[in-house]
Amino acid sequence: MPKPSNRDAFKAAGLSVMFRRGYHGAGVRDVAAEAGVPHGSFTNHFRSKEAFALEVLDDYFAHTRRLVDEALGDASLRPRERLQRYLQIVTERLAADGFVRGCLIGDFSLETTQVSEPLRQRLAEIYAEWLKPFAACIAEAQAAGEISDTFAPEDLADFLLSSWEGAILRMKVERSAAPLDRFRRIAFETVFRERMER
Amino acid sequence: MPKPSNRDAFKAAGLSVMFRRGYHGAGVRDVAAEAGVPHGSFTNHFRSKEAFALEVLDDYFAHTRRLVDEALGDASLRPRERLQRYLQIVTERLAADGFVRGCLIGDFSLETTQVSEPLRQRLAEIYAEWLKPFAACIAEAQAAGEISDTFAPEDLADFLLSSWEGAILRMKVERSAAPLDRFRRIAFETVFRERMER
Repeated sequence: MPKPSNRDAFKAAGLSVMFRRGYHGAGVRDVAAEAGVPHGSFTNHFRSKEAFALEVLDDYFAHTRRLVDEALGDASLRPRERLQRYLQIVTERLAADGFVRGCLIGDFSLETTQVSEPLRQRLAEIYAEWLKPFAACIAEAQAAGEISDTFAPEDLADFLLSSWEGAILRMKVERSAAPLDRFRRIAFETVFRERMER
Repeated sequence: MPKPSNRDAFKAAGLSVMFRRGYHGAGVRDVAAEAGVPHGSFTNHFRSKEAFALEVLDDYFAHTRRLVDEALGDASLRPRERLQRYLQIVTERLAADGFVRGCLIGDFSLETTQVSEPLRQRLAEIYAEWLKPFAACIAEAQAAGEISDTFAPEDLADFLLSSWEGAILRMKVERSAAPLDRFRRIAFETVFRERMER
């Protein structure tokens, strides 16, 4: 029975290396070296790099969901403010990394969907799950008259998270908060503009 | 003196392989096999994979600029319609590929910026150049009273192209036009909404 600690060390190192070099660029040797675990033991824990990447992605999404809960579950804020709070929390995390690392879900969306059907399908499931609390929060904001109800909450949630991934993509090139700030500023004065007639 | 045709074959194959497997996943051997050119001749043409990727990226951006010119240079359309026309042209291209391939500029933005400073800097230059005609077209739409002038044309251009990259990212997971259509529909009824008071 392999030690759980080695398994966890592989996964933590996998996240770190895949954040830096992507799915293809993360060799098992690089991950093992980063983990400080013998390279040969990888196959005791994971049946393939693809299976390994699926677990790393799931761990990352579990982390993302905690950030979603922290922001969208904050009952002290109005629904529209909770959406802004999420972007603010993520921006703080990205700033702590010097705007060098982005979002593994976005990274994998561009890099792996053509080469791995299991990863593509898992990403589709992740987006579906990720969007739900946003759609619920947007529906609440619409019901409260805070934002326009021209579009369905599900469409607005998808627009928000997709466009936010686009802002993170630009951030990685610019290495600055400017694309994130620009997105928040424009989106919350247009698509998610606060309605005056409340 | 190496034959130019081999050089071009490497670059065309490089685009194809990098579209599918990304920068890290595109081995020189894979590219040579796709090009039908001896693997050993790569170094006659390119001093490194990074230098090669920079040339592939430049060729891709030249192609993108032609699409920009086609759409934003269409004097038969009003400025706001030209912006929509660009998204429509790109959507047609993405549809022709079965929504499997995205945009190499976006792919490289996520995958290469942490590992190659020359690629990151070139991407920053590309965005700056790519944004200019969009900012000019948006300024024209604002001057004509077609869209709101709350935000600077440069900020709106950046928002448009970044968010569009986010929509393409989602498209690659869903393998459908839905994320692209959703983006166009929402963005052109909100951020780029046609002003009624013209």
